[in-house]
Amino acid sequence: MAEEKPLRFVVMVGSLRKGSYNAAIARALPALAPEGVSIVPLASVGEFPLYNMDIQNQGFPPVATAMADAIRAADGLIIVTPEYNYSMPGVLKNAIDWLSRLPQQPFAGKPVLIQSASQGGSGGVRAQLHLRHSLVFVEARAFNRPEIIIPMVQTKINAATGEITDPATRGLIADQLKAFAAFVRG
Amino acid sequence: MAEEKPLRFVVMVGSLRKGSYNAAIARALPALAPEGVSIVPLASVGEFPLYNMDIQNQGFPPVATAMADAIRAADGLIIVTPEYNYSMPGVLKNAIDWLSRLPQQPFAGKPVLIQSASQGGSGGVRAQLHLRHSLVFVEARAFNRPEIIIPMVQTKINAATGEITDPATRGLIADQLKAFAAFVRG
Amino acid sequence: MAEEKPLRFVVMVGSLRKGSYNAAIARALPALAPEGVSIVPLASVGEFPLYNMDIQNQGFPPVATAMADAIRAADGLIIVTPEYNYSMPGVLKNAIDWLSRLPQQPFAGKPVLIQSASQGGSGGVRAQLHLRHSLVFVEARAFNRPEIIIPMVQTKINAATGEITDPATRGLIADQLKAFAAFVRG
Amino acid sequence: MAEEKPLRFVVMVGSLRKGSYNAAIARALPALAPEGVSIVPLASVGEFPLYNMDIQNQGFPPVATAMADAIRAADGLIIVTPEYNYSMPGVLKNAIDWLSRLPQQPFAGKPVLIQSASQGGSGGVRAQLHLRHSLVFVEARAFNRPEIIIPMVQTKINAATGEITDPATRGLIADQLKAFAAFVRG
Repeated sequence: MAEEKPLRFVVMVGSLRKGSYNAAIARALPALAPEGVSIVPLASVGEFPLYNMDIQNQGFPPVATAMADAIRAADGLIIVTPEYNYSMPGVLKNAIDWLSRLPQQPFAGKPVLIQSASQGGSGGVRAQLHLRHSLVFVEARAFNRPEIIIPMVQTKINAATGEITDPATRGLIADQLKAFAAFVRG
Repeated sequence: MAEEKPLRFVVMVGSLRKGSYNAAIARALPALAPEGVSIVPLASVGEFPLYNMDIQNQGFPPVATAMADAIRAADGLIIVTPEYNYSMPGVLKNAIDWLSRLPQQPFAGKPVLIQSASQGGSGGVRAQLHLRHSLVFVEARAFNRPEIIIPMVQTKINAATGEITDPATRGLIADQLKAFAAFVRG
Repeated sequence: MAEEKPLRFVVMVGSLRKGSYNAAIARALPALAPEGVSIVPLASVGEFPLYNMDIQNQGFPPVATAMADAIRAADGLIIVTPEYNYSMPGVLKNAIDWLSRLPQQPFAGKPVLIQSASQGGSGGVRAQLHLRHSLVFVEARAFNRPEIIIPMVQTKINAATGEITDPATRGLIADQLKAFAAFVRG
Repeated sequence: MAEEKPLRFVVMVGSLRKGSYNAAIARALPALAPEGVSIVPLASVGEFPLYNMDIQNQGFPPVATAMADAIRAADGLIIVTPEYNYSMPGVLKNAIDWLSRLPQQPFAGKPVLIQSASQGGSGGVRAQLHLRHSLVFVEARAFNRPEIIIPMVQTKINAATGEITDPATRGLIADQLKAFAAFVRG
């Protein structure tokens, strides 16, 4: 039996808060990945300036070109994000706005997986819906389902350690990562 | 016949580009307003830092509190924005994310009017759809229609002077502002 | 102290299933309404034919004109609906499509309240988001929040009797109806 | 050079009007398809009853099972639809609701292409956005771009003959069909 090609995914986080639950989920992903899949963090979207085409015309910020290179080199992109005001966080969208303007923008044809968590009951589902529309424009290859939508995340993650304490949540994430790997291998 | 109460609207612009067509529209609004309605610009959303709750916990940035005061004091808010990647610009959403976190957040119950323009064929309609969802969360009183959705804006505005050269566009905006004033006076 | 004007709301249900949980919620509303508010059911959206402008051109179906009259005569409209395939049910949208085509379409300026329930975890939130966009087009006066989004509805309603057995859900609905009545009284 | 595998696409139309512009576009597709691609119509969504799980429990209507078979047997599905009330037509959504409930529902993994046209300025873009969300749920493999969004369709199609008289529109459709064929061959 032929061995499966190893895959390398990169992770973008939609929150800048140090104690972010979504950042904690992103940090937990490598341990939940199937064999042969490595998952590494991207730089923080907090390193981007606010998007301004006048700045772009003087040259893309190094964080944008570096993150684009990292996405292009990866087999897939995972976006883990909270929902702010029934949509994507502005800080996440701002990074996408920069990255999308690069020549050979890095989302084109790239497999993308979405996860979201919230302290309320919605689990970030509205952020996912809007993000999916942006992924159409940038021609990403967005994974459909199973989706990871985690409501009441504060009951499922230890805020001090960042550990996902809820076994069901760990299981759902592991299953999704496995399905995404199969999707990427196509 | 009793005179109508004078109204004062404030304008938020979703683009930071100096030559932004949407900014040009915002600047053109006062001259298109009905009698008794004054329209004044808010500060640039480019003055906000990237939203981070850790920063918030140390104190809201002065631009957020000042803009919130200006919105609270106004009879209505007008948002003029481009569409980036089939959604709101991150820079606009980032300002909304900050403002929405303030105690007595300024959108609650506030009449809000949306306008968008794009150089392509869509006129920013997708940005408007997503923005409307955010306005539900912050409990704004969003104006429905007529909507101002301006495709091919580069054919309707003089890029050098910022003047709206297309009479039909000027007429549609004037009509919308009149309808919005009636909506606000309720 | 002046007494408040009595209000009369009508209810549209987005599911045709006899044992529909959303229909059960609709039937429970009158008992949860604040004093001075009566809530009465509209005809079933299952009585509409599939929308076809060729039929419209020969005359609107009586169910459409009768339901439009009932909505026009009411102080507010409540829509209680499941979510199908991440959007509104087609049967609900079909009724809206018919009603919206009438001369003096009945949604214009009408206060509208949305409730949704699902047997899964989402509670129908995606149906609500899409419905809100339709309500912009028809120029309804959509109520913002609190929203009624009921996940795992089968654990909160007795399927045999249709009774809402979960006191928290009853309380949330009663609170929303009270807030909607205040919104309508303006 | 190896010959490319012939492809067979099926087309679903979101309008029941006999003179529908969207139906006219659907009829024009075969002549605009690249070599090796055949495009055949599905039955009308007007043949479906209104979705009702009580009916489903007594047996799926023959039109649902037949259309599902036709979609499963095809290499791709094309949906051509107008926009009603800022969303999909109820009649289109109703057919999707039926089809999605079948065992081995036919959208799973199926390449899907979307086209829309309107007599107004929007071209049906909002219907496309909502439809894309439904396609996530049913796990279709939705094509991203180029999109076919046709505003002012009455100036581009001869209403009497159904011919697409605008060469630019014909060119855009031909280009999209070619890109979709490449996407399907993947």
